[in-house]
Amino acid sequence: MRTLKLTLAYDGTDYAGWQSQPGRPTIQAAVEAACRQILQERVHVAGSGRTDAGVHALGQVAHLRTSRSLPCQTLQRGLNAVLPRDIVVRAVEEAPPDFHARFDAVSKRYRYRIVNGPVVLPFMRRYVHHVPVQLNVALMRREAAVLRGRHDFRSFHNTGRLVTDTVRTLSLARIERRRGELVIELEANGFLQGMARAIVGTLLELGRGRLPAGSMARILRAKRRQAAGPTAPARGLILVHADYR
Amino acid sequence: MRTLKLTLAYDGTDYAGWQSQPGRPTIQAAVEAACRQILQERVHVAGSGRTDAGVHALGQVAHLRTSRSLPCQTLQRGLNAVLPRDIVVRAVEEAPPDFHARFDAVSKRYRYRIVNGPVVLPFMRRYVHHVPVQLNVALMRREAAVLRGRHDFRSFHNTGRLVTDTVRTLSLARIERRRGELVIELEANGFLQGMARAIVGTLLELGRGRLPAGSMARILRAKRRQAAGPTAPARGLILVHADYR
Repeated sequence: MRTLKLTLAYDGTDYAGWQSQPGRPTIQAAVEAACRQILQERVHVAGSGRTDAGVHALGQVAHLRTSRSLPCQTLQRGLNAVLPRDIVVRAVEEAPPDFHARFDAVSKRYRYRIVNGPVVLPFMRRYVHHVPVQLNVALMRREAAVLRGRHDFRSFHNTGRLVTDTVRTLSLARIERRRGELVIELEANGFLQGMARAIVGTLLELGRGRLPAGSMARILRAKRRQAAGPTAPARGLILVHADYR
Repeated sequence: MRTLKLTLAYDGTDYAGWQSQPGRPTIQAAVEAACRQILQERVHVAGSGRTDAGVHALGQVAHLRTSRSLPCQTLQRGLNAVLPRDIVVRAVEEAPPDFHARFDAVSKRYRYRIVNGPVVLPFMRRYVHHVPVQLNVALMRREAAVLRGRHDFRSFHNTGRLVTDTVRTLSLARIERRRGELVIELEANGFLQGMARAIVGTLLELGRGRLPAGSMARILRAKRRQAAGPTAPARGLILVHADYR
């Protein structure tokens, strides 16, 4: 058996997220179906994490185990030939036999794009959240800085799935203006379900003046989802990369 | 009567081009329908030029004449509220009474994007042409330079429409590598129908080694469309801007 590491990019707009769900189009199901077709073998494809419905990826990482000897580049070309055009395999590499895309990931980075101006260009409408009102970016930056480090992120966790350990280390929480866009980058050793979008939604409440300075510290202490802001729309979120040792 | 100047961006993928055609979705028809709805008046919207089916625009310019006194910003907001999301009005401005988007344009710029690598990211698949093979960019640049200046561009003209004067002045023909893309920028005082894509198609034949050095000069002299290369796909082409005095 070989273990292969896949690096995937996808436009999540038309998918019900990464994880397979009966009767709904998912990235995992599409990639597994393509692998089955090319490898002529049933395979399970495990991702570094589950992106939600409508969330995109530039560098999602996944692994699969196969008995086939097909060269990596041939598999990549074959998969790209049969996958729908909104999913692309950027790389296929041999990995150590016990490599696991989820358990071995040491960090992940998400990017959230906000068009903070009057109009959204049609070319980016699937990949940005539109906030036409003025935002207090200086306040957003100060409050984002409070999140950096090791914290219990329970207040930013959608409680759909049972997770006992809600402590994560956020190594990056950066807000940049880039050509009319506000780009929020978050990097952590792991993200709870809904965490990235709950952080962005809370930062936007601060930016709009609906939450006062000091809110982030208070929200972290509250340890309940209702204390934080709303979940920002999926379209603006993209999984940039997953890192491994 | 007021004359208004509109600046439009659109994703041309799902349209049969700029110009109204019975029974087919066009940009002009969509913009005129939106204007009628907001202005409560029939208006004719004239563009700086006709983009072909599938061609995009970042800064198409158009004008309309209206008897209504609606402020420009209100009209812009109203149009963006009713237009399909792949067409966006970037600006509405008052113009001199006799302003004409087509006749007053002194130059237009087109950009053609080529992904010259193994895979196209799903986010750009509607806006680029994919050429996975290696290209001789140095040769493409030398041959593009031959086109600069005032020439009879008859060899790059799709003869569907009768045009007697096929002489144009190309002020820019630049080829740049930008993050894995090859970007071709063309600026001229006017473009014949199909001219930008015929130039790109010919440059790609040169880059692939299917045409020898010196071909551009020979093609210009030939003055017939068959002498040039094929028409490059519409998806890679975008009208960047139209300039006025």
